[in-house]
Amino acid sequence: MTKSTGGADIGVYGLGTMGSALAMNFADKGFRVAVSNRETDWIADFLTEAGTLAECMVGETDLEAFVSAIARPRNILFMIPSGAPIDAMIAAITPFLDEGDTLIDGGNADFHDTRRRSKAFEGTGFHFVGMGVSGGEEGARRGPSMMVGGTAHSWIALRPMVEAVAAKFQGEPCVDHLGPDGAGHFVKTVHNGIEYADMQMIAEVYGLLRDGGGQEAGAIGKLFESWQAGPLSSYLIEVSAAALQAVDGPTEQPVVDVILDQAGQKGTGRWTLIEALKMGQSASTIEAAVGARGWSSEKPVRVTAEPLLPAGTVAGEMPSTDDLEQALLAGRILGHAQGFRILSAASEEFDWSLDLARISEIWRAGCIIRSSLLDVLAEAFRAELPMGQLILAPKIIALLEPSIPGLRRVVAAGVSLGVALPALSGALAWYDSIRRARGSANMIQAQRDFFGAHGFARIDAEGQHHGDWPPLTSGS
Amino acid sequence: MTKSTGGADIGVYGLGTMGSALAMNFADKGFRVAVSNRETDWIADFLTEAGTLAECMVGETDLEAFVSAIARPRNILFMIPSGAPIDAMIAAITPFLDEGDTLIDGGNADFHDTRRRSKAFEGTGFHFVGMGVSGGEEGARRGPSMMVGGTAHSWIALRPMVEAVAAKFQGEPCVDHLGPDGAGHFVKTVHNGIEYADMQMIAEVYGLLRDGGGQEAGAIGKLFESWQAGPLSSYLIEVSAAALQAVDGPTEQPVVDVILDQAGQKGTGRWTLIEALKMGQSASTIEAAVGARGWSSEKPVRVTAEPLLPAGTVAGEMPSTDDLEQALLAGRILGHAQGFRILSAASEEFDWSLDLARISEIWRAGCIIRSSLLDVLAEAFRAELPMGQLILAPKIIALLEPSIPGLRRVVAAGVSLGVALPALSGALAWYDSIRRARGSANMIQAQRDFFGAHGFARIDAEGQHHGDWPPLTSGS
Repeated sequence: MTKSTGGADIGVYGLGTMGSALAMNFADKGFRVAVSNRETDWIADFLTEAGTLAECMVGETDLEAFVSAIARPRNILFMIPSGAPIDAMIAAITPFLDEGDTLIDGGNADFHDTRRRSKAFEGTGFHFVGMGVSGGEEGARRGPSMMVGGTAHSWIALRPMVEAVAAKFQGEPCVDHLGPDGAGHFVKTVHNGIEYADMQMIAEVYGLLRDGGGQEAGAIGKLFESWQAGPLSSYLIEVSAAALQAVDGPTEQPVVDVILDQAGQKGTGRWTLIEALKMGQSASTIEAAVGARGWSSEKPVRVTAEPLLPAGTVAGEMPSTDDLEQALLAGRILGHAQGFRILSAASEEFDWSLDLARISEIWRAGCIIRSSLLDVLAEAFRAELPMGQLILAPKIIALLEPSIPGLRRVVAAGVSLGVALPALSGALAWYDSIRRARGSANMIQAQRDFFGAHGFARIDAEGQHHGDWPPLTSGS
Repeated sequence: MTKSTGGADIGVYGLGTMGSALAMNFADKGFRVAVSNRETDWIADFLTEAGTLAECMVGETDLEAFVSAIARPRNILFMIPSGAPIDAMIAAITPFLDEGDTLIDGGNADFHDTRRRSKAFEGTGFHFVGMGVSGGEEGARRGPSMMVGGTAHSWIALRPMVEAVAAKFQGEPCVDHLGPDGAGHFVKTVHNGIEYADMQMIAEVYGLLRDGGGQEAGAIGKLFESWQAGPLSSYLIEVSAAALQAVDGPTEQPVVDVILDQAGQKGTGRWTLIEALKMGQSASTIEAAVGARGWSSEKPVRVTAEPLLPAGTVAGEMPSTDDLEQALLAGRILGHAQGFRILSAASEEFDWSLDLARISEIWRAGCIIRSSLLDVLAEAFRAELPMGQLILAPKIIALLEPSIPGLRRVVAAGVSLGVALPALSGALAWYDSIRRARGSANMIQAQRDFFGAHGFARIDAEGQHHGDWPPLTSGS
């Protein structure tokens, strides 16, 4: 029995913000799109909203009819919540699939789940793709950056369509096949980790200007706007500059002044850290950003603490605006470098052969962390990297050289004046740790050998050694 | 058939450093101890080494004979590597057990494993205890601090023996039943996390004095020794002071100067962080300590980096020794406070009803982090804590008040002079975050709503709101 197959080039299941935007983007590029949704009444609403684009679309309330409306081999994109809903959807749709069909999870899935699902698809004749999509609603509608993990077969089928809808950087589509199984979702997770760090550092500079410098939101926004002309040029600076200058209708105050200082998070920052830790990596900038969001959510504790805890501030002065710009640039470079170290470690751990230059390239447009810096990073990765370390690339050193003193002055100001700069100071602490040939871990090793006989390596001999430690006088 | 049962009060399986020391400690306190070991030739060696204590011991090479040598209901302590060896051991020994017998895992187990094993023991008539043991070899031999998780039944049987061998603080044994299943191992894990942070902060002060102040190891050791008379009094300061003054035989150099600056870690620090992150917690001091050990292990990168990466130091001056002492005190308080926040979160998450005052008390002697501060913490926990936060206790505020300015001057010095102080600066960043009623997370929320329509809460109205954000002029 031959199943009826319709003529749609792709199916999009899930018509929330991101799914709707992507479906319209596909239609915009001339693809025929079959759409469906669990709440079936959303489908007609969506088609009405799609206007003339609905001519390229077919809506199906029934899952089998939805599958049948797509031309074989099918590409079916799920834009639904991660986790259990994806597993349920896979189970529900599989009976209607034909050999060679590909299911694509376009959500922010845990890459371990994507690996598990990819594994389960092996030998079934069907394919599974984990695709990270960045850029928010606007990106999904006009051109997102997309990170694809899956089999070579599924990439061949998917490529023309995702390249058409992707953001373009100087004409090049910001999407690529980054590796098998969970590679795409992992890279997207780390993208979000870097995003957390970058957003946090921007918020820290805002906080220092507000609380240390007594500046108004609008003035800070103007300063950020001026930075768009320099090396900080990026979507997040642009967004921040615009947000700081926006005025709240009801109160005629700057909008940021009426927003509660309590940040939400959906988990990708924490995932990044947990995976990094499992691989023996530590990304101080992302740790700080995740920590800061968590602490911000403890508003009642902070309100209680303010009158109780001494500020104990010491002499210090506000840095220049030039220092602030340089500090943010140095922080951004170091945050990205930490993110890419996690990607390197995962590439080795999961045998993905990630192309870090290519990842930088597909992040140059469409995604939230797009910035002029990413073009420099891509060039640096294309050139030879000493020890595989981004921060040792000559192009990067050339940027760090003038920016590190500013980072130091900014962090010292926050430390002295009592304004928390966890991500910027975490960036600097990493920089000062990794640039010093002889650190202070010999003290840690001395302690460990003293109380736990863990042994230590010597600078002048091979093997494990123990100290001939004296007995403690206190007898404690 | 009645199995023959011997007269030993406890069985100790595993005669490595910690197992041997504990077995001798039990014998010292008058208990009869059955011992065994996988490598059976270790048993006779151990008994020879035990000298007259061997009179209270019986060694058995056969597992069944070992079990039979112990009086019922039996307490059998495993001091063997965590993970698979414990599961294998449980499987091997179970056939020889009788109703009411208790198996005790005294290793650094992952508390999730301990929970799983406890669950598996339910209804079998046997009991399982996860017991954290701190204090290193010397502690195990002379009196460790022990953290017990398990059933009430097993605690009744175990209590007289572990109280006898535990360290004593003003006569009180440093051991208690902290909760069911994994509670003991979890508390031990967090103990180690706090230990990581404390060791790191000591190493940072050493590093600042060495690299920023040009001081010799011996002089730094003398300074640390002087701190033993003040509020920093602790085992780790004592150990560090002694280690810094120890001289290497072969080279006649300070031992610390010939130790490679590359720190090892066995995983408890990382576990602490991963579990904290899973519960929405971030402990910046422990994150910094784990990160610093990881970065220290990248010695070849650091050696390559030193001549390539600009220091970019700025004007700054070394803090006074008084500032250093105060900084370390503030850092220690904040590190402990972060550790106890993780314990609070876990207590809620796993329904353990952990008694934080009691935990402080059993850490006052025997364990690696024992210090005069822990006695203050215990008092603070016994009194009323505003919002359940240690740092809001009047006794703690009284210590922070004079120490925060020193912490600021020390961190500012490291930042300016280019000496990495990741844990001290992480402690300060948390302090400055948690003490400020209005933070900068409103900027994060503005960004998230701008690009992702995530919504935000307002300071002046209920519910979720969205900004009426302007279109971006660049069209990016």
